[in-house]
Amino acid sequence: MSTERLRKQLNFIMEIDKLKTITRRSYLADGSRKENDAEHSWHLAVMVLLLSELDNIDVLKTLKMVLIHDLVEIDAGDTYCYDETGNAGKFERECLAAKRLFSLLPEEQGREFFELWREFEERKTREACFAAVLDRMQPLLLNYWAKGKSWQENDISAASVISKNALFDNGPEEIRKYVAEMIDSAIEKGYLKK
Amino acid sequence: MSTERLRKQLNFIMEIDKLKTITRRSYLADGSRKENDAEHSWHLAVMVLLLSELDNIDVLKTLKMVLIHDLVEIDAGDTYCYDETGNAGKFERECLAAKRLFSLLPEEQGREFFELWREFEERKTREACFAAVLDRMQPLLLNYWAKGKSWQENDISAASVISKNALFDNGPEEIRKYVAEMIDSAIEKGYLKK
Repeated sequence: MSTERLRKQLNFIMEIDKLKTITRRSYLADGSRKENDAEHSWHLAVMVLLLSELDNIDVLKTLKMVLIHDLVEIDAGDTYCYDETGNAGKFERECLAAKRLFSLLPEEQGREFFELWREFEERKTREACFAAVLDRMQPLLLNYWAKGKSWQENDISAASVISKNALFDNGPEEIRKYVAEMIDSAIEKGYLKK
Repeated sequence: MSTERLRKQLNFIMEIDKLKTITRRSYLADGSRKENDAEHSWHLAVMVLLLSELDNIDVLKTLKMVLIHDLVEIDAGDTYCYDETGNAGKFERECLAAKRLFSLLPEEQGREFFELWREFEERKTREACFAAVLDRMQPLLLNYWAKGKSWQENDISAASVISKNALFDNGPEEIRKYVAEMIDSAIEKGYLKK
């Protein structure tokens, strides 16, 4: 292990500190402020630890995926899932970001991170599908706990939320049921407009 | 898998959202604001992914440890490592917090998290020592990048920083060397007073 290698790794580690400044649309559960991508990634990782029992996945690989999946937003910014315009060209923007960021690392580590990021985006493996389910569920949980603050601010209807939930079909039945009930409850409580 | 079990897990997941509100003494690398425990835990987890090659450790176990090691601060608050008074009684405060928090989980998951937290605190295993080294190194990196802002605010001298660094003796030689050079450089640049 050369010092040059460690220096590269630590430069990357300090570069990705910027993830803490990428603000998302979701509020914290207490509604006090919006969360950022670093907090979101940590939250997802703990969700993987507790909920991986619902699926037959490689836990370590899934953890790696959720820990790095949003790093590309350091360059490409956060794209709101209900923003149709912003979502056009998103993959290309993020691909450039992935290339720049991961090339800061020693070559084989950079390649591993790039492949993990692409696997997450492509949603073809069990791990990628499971990670995507949690990535979608976490802001729903926050929005519900924060009494729909972000849905109301962005004028999001129940139909929009439900239309984005097809991806739950590739996840555990138990989670699909929970999310469906939560959305019904959000409508009933007036957090989410019909 | 009962819905009751999932409900417990998700209640815990929402309870630990509070980690995002526990502010630490370290500033982000750009000096713009102080970081919080959730961001810090995410940062440590990525450090584990990249630097675990420096030691012979179980990566998954170490990741679990760093992801949950600060949850006790939701009840017990963050204790600054240079605060002698605050550090007295810290373990007892945090032990109570661990008991309350982890008892929200299904029993065997709560037990696993409690044991992981205790293992981290006791620093007897290779994984716990490695996690503790990164936990100490990450704020040093941030303080260096933020030009010593937190050291100056808290009137911390080089001697205090060095006195806390004995724990690096249990970690990889390569990291010990890097940290020693960083502290020398911090003194030279005037980030840290002699």
